[in-house]
Amino acid sequence: MKNILGENDRIAAENQAMFRDKGVYVINLMGSPGAGKTSVLEKTMERLKGELRMAVIEGDLFTSKDAERIEKYDVPVIQINTSGGCHLDAAMVQKVAGKMELGDLDLLIVENVGNLVCPAEFAVGEDAKGVVLSITEGDDKPLKYPLVFKESSIALLNKVDILPYCNFDMKSAKEDILALHPGMEVVEVSCTTGQGIDEWCRWLKARVAEKRRG
Amino acid sequence: MKNILGENDRIAAENQAMFRDKGVYVINLMGSPGAGKTSVLEKTMERLKGELRMAVIEGDLFTSKDAERIEKYDVPVIQINTSGGCHLDAAMVQKVAGKMELGDLDLLIVENVGNLVCPAEFAVGEDAKGVVLSITEGDDKPLKYPLVFKESSIALLNKVDILPYCNFDMKSAKEDILALHPGMEVVEVSCTTGQGIDEWCRWLKARVAEKRRG
Repeated sequence: MKNILGENDRIAAENQAMFRDKGVYVINLMGSPGAGKTSVLEKTMERLKGELRMAVIEGDLFTSKDAERIEKYDVPVIQINTSGGCHLDAAMVQKVAGKMELGDLDLLIVENVGNLVCPAEFAVGEDAKGVVLSITEGDDKPLKYPLVFKESSIALLNKVDILPYCNFDMKSAKEDILALHPGMEVVEVSCTTGQGIDEWCRWLKARVAEKRRG
Repeated sequence: MKNILGENDRIAAENQAMFRDKGVYVINLMGSPGAGKTSVLEKTMERLKGELRMAVIEGDLFTSKDAERIEKYDVPVIQINTSGGCHLDAAMVQKVAGKMELGDLDLLIVENVGNLVCPAEFAVGEDAKGVVLSITEGDDKPLKYPLVFKESSIALLNKVDILPYCNFDMKSAKEDILALHPGMEVVEVSCTTGQGIDEWCRWLKARVAEKRRG
């Protein structure tokens, strides 16, 4: 396991150098199956299409269902099928990123396989990781799955439109997240009402601008 | 990977022989974080406590939050912490099951780590696997995570009480599940209203009785 992670870190460092060279900001978006990662991406494409040059790498076990959803926004999207593998690794991302016109991009979003555990262990060369947690998953999840919150720079608490029908203590969830990762950005989001999408997109734009300034 | 799976299968076969000897029916319950596995178990304990002698093995990365919820029902529960590991394996289950009074049990439920991918690859010696999918995860999940549906004998589609607030096509999800696994048991469940809990418990009792008859 240590050897696998060491080799992955080596390739992730190569990826990071490649992304730095090309001046593209890369975020690795993680979350459980059905947390709403693809829905967040759809809203992001919609909102930022005129402002940033974006592309998406979609990680999935077998299907290309998510990539098809993103393609509708006329944004370059590459599908990685892991053939049942539970996370993306740096080598998978290197293989497809090498074929992309990275120099033409401001922002590359990598949507990882739906899994709140394994993806957090594997860097892919990203500038930052982000986690999407659906409030339907329960407020106990940050403490139960701590690594993904420790590793991520931003947490999107998604589907807040159905908060009244769910037993989710927002205050307690936020306290747990900030205890795990002090100072972490936490945004309440709904892809149905659009709540929080502006805040998330502002955060992304600030990161992209920061990277451009070097 | 093949070696790991082969070694796991060997230990799982040992567990299965041990469970057969003791006449205890074992189900391995899987699902995403927040699918509602522990809530289903709470309802199961409540419903079957007078009828079956039950115990629970709780798989979790770090915390004992789920085990604490089950303990309230005065049912023996053993916690396995995987220290970040993404699934239970046969050796982990063997280690704790060896310490249980299996001869005094009719039904042992193993709640796996919250993960729709990895647990499906690792038998623990169970008689059957079951999958809990929350309808908030989306109707595209069966085709995106096919292995867990192929491996499971029963699928509980949970949180149907909030179906009106979610964009989930029940008909299409069921068709996809039955295409992956023809004849599979599929039950709509709500731990809030109690819908489907009877049907699930009847299914469990029938399996336990079947095993007793040998």
